[in-house]
Amino acid sequence: MIGSKNVSSQAITARSEDYSRWYTDVIQRAELADYAPVRGCMIIKPYGYALWEHIQQQLDRRFKDTGHENAYFPLFIPEEFIMKEKDNFEGFSPELAVVTIGGGEVLEQRLVVRPTSEAIIGHSFSNWIHSYRDLPLLINQWANVVRWEMRTRLFLRTMEFLWQEGHTAHATHDEAEEETLKMLGVYADFAINEAAIPVIQGRKSNQERFAGALRTYSIEAMMGDKKALQSGTSHNLGQGFAKAFDIKYSDRGNQLQHCWTTSWGLSTRMIGGIIMTHGDDQGLRMPPRLAPIQVIIVPIYKNDDEKSKVMEAVDALFAELKGAGLRVRVDVREDLTPGFKFNDWEMRGVPVRVEIGPKDVQNNAAAVARRDVPGKAGKQFVPREGLVERIKALLVEIQANLLAQATAFRDANIHPIENDYARFREIIKDGWAYTWFCGGAECEAKIKEDNQAVSRCFPLDQEKGEGKCIHCGAPATERAYFAKAY
Amino acid sequence: MIGSKNVSSQAITARSEDYSRWYTDVIQRAELADYAPVRGCMIIKPYGYALWEHIQQQLDRRFKDTGHENAYFPLFIPEEFIMKEKDNFEGFSPELAVVTIGGGEVLEQRLVVRPTSEAIIGHSFSNWIHSYRDLPLLINQWANVVRWEMRTRLFLRTMEFLWQEGHTAHATHDEAEEETLKMLGVYADFAINEAAIPVIQGRKSNQERFAGALRTYSIEAMMGDKKALQSGTSHNLGQGFAKAFDIKYSDRGNQLQHCWTTSWGLSTRMIGGIIMTHGDDQGLRMPPRLAPIQVIIVPIYKNDDEKSKVMEAVDALFAELKGAGLRVRVDVREDLTPGFKFNDWEMRGVPVRVEIGPKDVQNNAAAVARRDVPGKAGKQFVPREGLVERIKALLVEIQANLLAQATAFRDANIHPIENDYARFREIIKDGWAYTWFCGGAECEAKIKEDNQAVSRCFPLDQEKGEGKCIHCGAPATERAYFAKAY
Repeated sequence: MIGSKNVSSQAITARSEDYSRWYTDVIQRAELADYAPVRGCMIIKPYGYALWEHIQQQLDRRFKDTGHENAYFPLFIPEEFIMKEKDNFEGFSPELAVVTIGGGEVLEQRLVVRPTSEAIIGHSFSNWIHSYRDLPLLINQWANVVRWEMRTRLFLRTMEFLWQEGHTAHATHDEAEEETLKMLGVYADFAINEAAIPVIQGRKSNQERFAGALRTYSIEAMMGDKKALQSGTSHNLGQGFAKAFDIKYSDRGNQLQHCWTTSWGLSTRMIGGIIMTHGDDQGLRMPPRLAPIQVIIVPIYKNDDEKSKVMEAVDALFAELKGAGLRVRVDVREDLTPGFKFNDWEMRGVPVRVEIGPKDVQNNAAAVARRDVPGKAGKQFVPREGLVERIKALLVEIQANLLAQATAFRDANIHPIENDYARFREIIKDGWAYTWFCGGAECEAKIKEDNQAVSRCFPLDQEKGEGKCIHCGAPATERAYFAKAY
Repeated sequence: MIGSKNVSSQAITARSEDYSRWYTDVIQRAELADYAPVRGCMIIKPYGYALWEHIQQQLDRRFKDTGHENAYFPLFIPEEFIMKEKDNFEGFSPELAVVTIGGGEVLEQRLVVRPTSEAIIGHSFSNWIHSYRDLPLLINQWANVVRWEMRTRLFLRTMEFLWQEGHTAHATHDEAEEETLKMLGVYADFAINEAAIPVIQGRKSNQERFAGALRTYSIEAMMGDKKALQSGTSHNLGQGFAKAFDIKYSDRGNQLQHCWTTSWGLSTRMIGGIIMTHGDDQGLRMPPRLAPIQVIIVPIYKNDDEKSKVMEAVDALFAELKGAGLRVRVDVREDLTPGFKFNDWEMRGVPVRVEIGPKDVQNNAAAVARRDVPGKAGKQFVPREGLVERIKALLVEIQANLLAQATAFRDANIHPIENDYARFREIIKDGWAYTWFCGGAECEAKIKEDNQAVSRCFPLDQEKGEGKCIHCGAPATERAYFAKAY
């Protein structure tokens, strides 16, 4: 499937021409995903799924390292359960898929397909937790969820998506808050250090909170079109769900207390983030740490004699790279020119390309091209001896370079502003604004109406100070980012 | 969660008293799973899910090694798709969960929750496959599926279960058949060498085939109550699905041909197989290669002075075992006696227990108990030097011993029989019969009516010969196993 013989020769739309179309062109050309027969649903093809598997591995390791255990809760939630936490229900009820027929019969008890699992997990926690000794309870699940979205986009917003959702229960507010921020930090560490996406950790305004949460935090990233992408969220649910689902524990004094709970999630939307943070007009640029294929070897030969010499060298290099733990592949497709293959693997975003032709075999060298530096500047002839070490080092350089490029682009497109709402409006037409914000509902609604943009977050890391809310002028003690968003 | 402080002191029902109740007692006491609020659905708790994760890793590695790639197809299938393959639809239509409401509206196009994915994957394959160069197409997905089961049992048969389903497309019948048998062999290798379950690979009778398949193969295992458990299936789907979903390719002569497809699946039912193959009246016995916890260390001390000496030795041993790649845990729960802990971890099936008390520290030794040999015979004092190597060797011994015990039990309860239907009927009340069978529908229906048992399979590995069908007396060239089954 990956690099199948089915090769499309249609060009990818330039980003400057139509960014949306560039995005879907890249996904389809690189065979990451397809549209499914059911509106708004997607098929994740092997290359896209391999990327997801690497994302899963990197996150799961961090979850286990922070004491969480994986479990699995049901897909179906009784309708009345979802209704128990009123705000959560109001938030999600227009988005539910409901099973009304089972085994050929109309069901008495209608079943909702989980849009998120607080209700069913809350119910379980109330059965499992009895004493302070049972806390903290630190659970995660990898699952599919369904939200009846009207406007869908591959990876970014689909009716069904894959994610992980963590759910934890604690004895105190402070422990819950510590966990909420810890997992936000895990997301940021993953995004920055695995996906090479520079994210900002911040707190959502009250209006932008998860329905039913006390406090919601998110990691926010800037995409290639300068729009924001909320790339992961972590919620301190306070005691709201514990009260709705009766999650209690006896404390050291034998008094019954409600737990304080958290939940946090990151989904296949992250793949959209990787595409749009690093992609260029040639296609994808995969961060090496997550790339399904890190090194592609393209053999070059004109006849059988050249072929056998070249393939001998190729096979030896392949074995050595594989033995060094790299994800390497050889493009042995017949009937395609080397030039075609170069473009194809660039389009698919493979970080390093190695070309081996008869002259290279003769010279005991190879041509090595790096995806992050276009044209001749990105290609070198490297001696065969030490080639594997050179490639390993190159992958580390490319990873760092992708992060640096994304960081520079983002920082160049965030504009601090104060006291000038007209200028603020100009800025967020094409970039992010960073400004004092009162956080109020009315203000935010007006800003949204005026600009089709809401606050992204109040960054955790900000200088203390005071100013005037950019919209209403009231005193404000925090700055927030504003941007159009996905 | 695993080994939580919530400890139940209810005894496990003896197998000889009530095998069904023993089974559910073990699952609940060992905290493998729970019943969900929705009838027939289950919650897989962390200890059970950790076992599933090891099963997944071992299978996934084998799938990748045999050239398959993972992808992900949608949960929802348009109702009309499922209807396209008539036999498949008839087979599954009484078992479907149907979504009729989405986003608050009644849907025009009703959506079926996948009971299996041939229909949706067949549809995709018809879009992806054009030429012989696209074949073979070797895809697998890890997913949840829903079948509206009336009689459910934790892990063995649940409304929603987790599984992998492989789907492949080939140019010829023979290539499809080769793949079908190859994957059956992968399942057998996994069952025998990872789960320590001795399985028989065989072909299903025509009546017992997957709805729509040309040929169905399965791995069959004998549980502790002598019933059979079908533990994995592999189907040669012939050209039926290719014709229903228009999966065609142009051959080397540029003629359009229908593909030959296969599908194969193994599910969370395997966990039930592990419980019932190895479990005893004390509870679980986990095969070391899949055990979530391979070694449990129980510290023994009476006062703070002893505690600090003991914990120093415990921590050092823990680090060494972990460094050696073993899955090890220390039971630091307060307020529980060592004796209680011994029983608790035996109940949870942990293969090796290490006890360290003050005398052991003094003697530079430890007590090591193996789960597969009860009482004093299973416990030894082992010098601290070489302890880790001894434990590693012990895990390998236990794995082999569990397989040997299960194999001996199974073989002792399979009884060959010919020409004596009355004796055959006696045998399958409490064991498996191995006998000549004509394979006919009428015969099998009668046998089922008489005995509440059908054929399990015609084993691939059997002596050639001829005899008379055990039921109808017609000439038969193959023997089959018969048994009551889950």
